[in-house]
Amino acid sequence: MLRVDGGRLWQSVMDMAEIGATDAGGSCRLALSDEDKAGRDLFAGWCRDEDCGIHIDSLGNMFARRAGADDSLAPIVIGSHLDTQPHGGRFDGVYGVLAGLEIVRALNRAGAQTRAPLEIVNWTNEEGARFAPAMLASGVYAGVHEAEFALSRADGDGRTLERELERIGYAGDEPCGARPMGCYLEAHIEQGPVLESNREIIGVVTGAQGTRWFDLRVAGADAHAGSTPMPGRKDALAAAAALVSGFEELAGRFLPHGVATCGEMHVLPNSRNTVPGEVRMTLDLRHPEDAQLAEMAEAARALAEKTAAARGVEISCEQIWHGAPVKFARECVDAVESAAAELGYPHRRMVSGAGHDACQVARKAPTAMVFVPCEGGVSHNEQEYAEPEHLEAGANTLLHAALKFDSTLTSQ
Amino acid sequence: MLRVDGGRLWQSVMDMAEIGATDAGGSCRLALSDEDKAGRDLFAGWCRDEDCGIHIDSLGNMFARRAGADDSLAPIVIGSHLDTQPHGGRFDGVYGVLAGLEIVRALNRAGAQTRAPLEIVNWTNEEGARFAPAMLASGVYAGVHEAEFALSRADGDGRTLERELERIGYAGDEPCGARPMGCYLEAHIEQGPVLESNREIIGVVTGAQGTRWFDLRVAGADAHAGSTPMPGRKDALAAAAALVSGFEELAGRFLPHGVATCGEMHVLPNSRNTVPGEVRMTLDLRHPEDAQLAEMAEAARALAEKTAAARGVEISCEQIWHGAPVKFARECVDAVESAAAELGYPHRRMVSGAGHDACQVARKAPTAMVFVPCEGGVSHNEQEYAEPEHLEAGANTLLHAALKFDSTLTSQ
Repeated sequence: MLRVDGGRLWQSVMDMAEIGATDAGGSCRLALSDEDKAGRDLFAGWCRDEDCGIHIDSLGNMFARRAGADDSLAPIVIGSHLDTQPHGGRFDGVYGVLAGLEIVRALNRAGAQTRAPLEIVNWTNEEGARFAPAMLASGVYAGVHEAEFALSRADGDGRTLERELERIGYAGDEPCGARPMGCYLEAHIEQGPVLESNREIIGVVTGAQGTRWFDLRVAGADAHAGSTPMPGRKDALAAAAALVSGFEELAGRFLPHGVATCGEMHVLPNSRNTVPGEVRMTLDLRHPEDAQLAEMAEAARALAEKTAAARGVEISCEQIWHGAPVKFARECVDAVESAAAELGYPHRRMVSGAGHDACQVARKAPTAMVFVPCEGGVSHNEQEYAEPEHLEAGANTLLHAALKFDSTLTSQ
Repeated sequence: MLRVDGGRLWQSVMDMAEIGATDAGGSCRLALSDEDKAGRDLFAGWCRDEDCGIHIDSLGNMFARRAGADDSLAPIVIGSHLDTQPHGGRFDGVYGVLAGLEIVRALNRAGAQTRAPLEIVNWTNEEGARFAPAMLASGVYAGVHEAEFALSRADGDGRTLERELERIGYAGDEPCGARPMGCYLEAHIEQGPVLESNREIIGVVTGAQGTRWFDLRVAGADAHAGSTPMPGRKDALAAAAALVSGFEELAGRFLPHGVATCGEMHVLPNSRNTVPGEVRMTLDLRHPEDAQLAEMAEAARALAEKTAAARGVEISCEQIWHGAPVKFARECVDAVESAAAELGYPHRRMVSGAGHDACQVARKAPTAMVFVPCEGGVSHNEQEYAEPEHLEAGANTLLHAALKFDSTLTSQ
């Protein structure tokens, strides 16, 4: 059975990490920065060394193409993103692009030919750290956003994505979204603790959770902490605490997949000896099934109303975003699972909790993802770490999933 | 029965409020500021108009003395403070000083003589807003602080209390604490909702609550809100919410007097889609009985330990301050209660939730306080308001409590 070279893959990941390397062991390559350009150039050079042609679309997405036996077939596309968070790790995104490169290298060394062409993609501005929103250029590719919208996004200094693409020389001629795609495969670190804690090394990702975001405001009344008896207080923080506990309990009724998180809280006036009169907080609800997610949202709203009535405070609960769940294509998910099984890797089906380019692309082409463990589930952090043998296993799984998909194709 | 002139008292309160008047209807006379000097000068002038001699001690405390029939008796002292919060109201402190002045005026108009001398006091830096801690100069008077400690306190610009006393001409020669005191009576707005909500107009204050302040830190682990399942999370905010609810429930076991307040909370990293890894918060526990307060503190610590164990997080709970409860002298409290009853004012015995100069002075001389309602319990706020007839009732109660105390004295 054909295998990738884990050492070569690791070395490429480490070499890429040198570009924008941070003192704390991470990387900073914000989308379309000079560092991002240097990373793109390095990647393009590696691809040319493998006889791949580089194609750039109008959003700066890079496609490195290895010819197939039948170039009329839509390509099998493997990739992710090379941009990072400001205090990013060395693996988030990078691993998925370089796993694609390693697969091409392995196929080339083995002299193996696929029926369909194979392309490695680097999507522009996945992180959203420089230009909001995240997953921007894969979103344009999939028809979620208009190209004009994406090109007009500006960073904190007012520089547009369009201007920065031109500045670094990555504004291509090909219209974004025009390029055909037979299927899309993406490898990524899990960014969560599930594989590690279950001692598994491959996550067969079946799709992504739906998400609903809420802004809540609890309005009570400021009062003197000493001279205001407990009965009759309108303590906004006590009410907010009841909400936090209630949301946690609510998620417990939607296990194993439902999650509820209050990530942000602001207390006013935030003074030691004043009963808080106001709290502003957020709620993040996620579930892979949209109907269940709607039930969670309904229960959250009901809890807010009940808490307000019980405590004589006002609570507003406004939904500010709803991202529907994504289901990956069965044939692609099955191919990943079979590959992991045949390679003998402990694996599990799982749903992605984070957003990825694959979640956008899945709207347009059959898609699947492979997750590998990351230490402690830590990501978006310079300490992010993944074991070399896990990266190797993920790339092997991706390789054989791609070959399985390829074997189902017939020449047109 | 002798009565004060409510209209004259109200006018004096309004005249004093003009000094440092704020646009929003309050006053700003920070301790030893130019405005405080102007307020002191106005008060001293009014006292001299009533044939009172002004005595200033080394901390700038002002004593305006009306002679008694027997000047060898220790004086009956009535007062409070003229300094305010930065966004202070018109009544906090001011009312107690000017109630003393109004009593002297009423006695003078009636040609009434007391056995003991009567003194009106204005204590320096009660608020603590400019020089920390609060109740500073009454604390020196009562032996709680050394004079040197108080004189060396500096404001935010590094100017010491000693320098500022000299600058405004209120550094007196008399050693602070040397002046004898037969008893001390202080009228004050309640700064809480109890009298108003019970439609009573006189609070017979029997003492002040004890207070314990705690700093808590909950250390969990940051995690991705999407990719981290509910079981296994170390959500610091969920743990903090359990503490807030638990402390509230704890106070409920110590009703009617026990109170528990979490006034301050800081969530880290405070990001919508990150499970919070750390929370810092405060706890303010109060009870009029020190033994009960100790029980509350013990229960709070136990709750922190139990919550840490149950949730797999670390919780530290450090007591940073303990102020013991204060009990006022029975004879003084009884005198206030009898006066209120004889004057026909609806009244109740109550414990002060806030700190006052009387809480310091009570360590040195028999002391009592009279509370009057303030609108909505609002204080330390430019909107602070008290009804003229309530101020009048409080001053009448104080007057007759003083006369009752005086009548128990025999010449030495």
